[in-house]
Amino acid sequence: MASRTSAETATTESCCGSVLTAPLSPSDAEVLARGFAALADPVRLRLLSMIAATGEVCSCDLLQPLGKSQPTVSHHTKALAEAGLITGDKRGRWVYWRVIPERVDALRRALQSGE
Amino acid sequence: MASRTSAETATTESCCGSVLTAPLSPSDAEVLARGFAALADPVRLRLLSMIAATGEVCSCDLLQPLGKSQPTVSHHTKALAEAGLITGDKRGRWVYWRVIPERVDALRRALQSGE
Repeated sequence: MASRTSAETATTESCCGSVLTAPLSPSDAEVLARGFAALADPVRLRLLSMIAATGEVCSCDLLQPLGKSQPTVSHHTKALAEAGLITGDKRGRWVYWRVIPERVDALRRALQSGE
Repeated sequence: MASRTSAETATTESCCGSVLTAPLSPSDAEVLARGFAALADPVRLRLLSMIAATGEVCSCDLLQPLGKSQPTVSHHTKALAEAGLITGDKRGRWVYWRVIPERVDALRRALQSGE
């Protein structure tokens, strides 16, 4: 499941110029908005942060620090994976997650000023 | 209204370290998630982009390029202002909007890698 999810992701990586330097096209705005929507939730931001800080994290190690149930954590990791921000590797019962830095960086670049 | 809105904004500016370098605290995650939620809509991203590219824009000049009604544009500029990303100056019938670069930059910094 996890690897298929990452293959289905949107094209944030190849998109877009900075929002701040030239008016954004409607199609670029759609792609970026989907990326930012994945970050628009405090639990997802904390998950992304925990995964990034560790490099690779077993989903089994995400439950206790967040104090959330397994279905909740699964729901949010799925949203992050669908946005292309993390990718998962299923090993036995658990998924091991890591950040896709290029995708996060595409969103960061979209907020870069022209100066 | 516009100037009061900007005074009521969240504290994105003074917040936060990068999401990618250390696990995010729950309170920082709340602040950042509110900022990213404002960017999680293609019309709001296009508005932010148009305002940033021009420097200062009359709300009267935002309707035609977006092809949206005045209530829709007002709704979205209000959301951007409440997130502290733009600030408005009411002159006569119209509000003149400009970007608050420090706020956008706080969100950009949150996506900065540690490398």
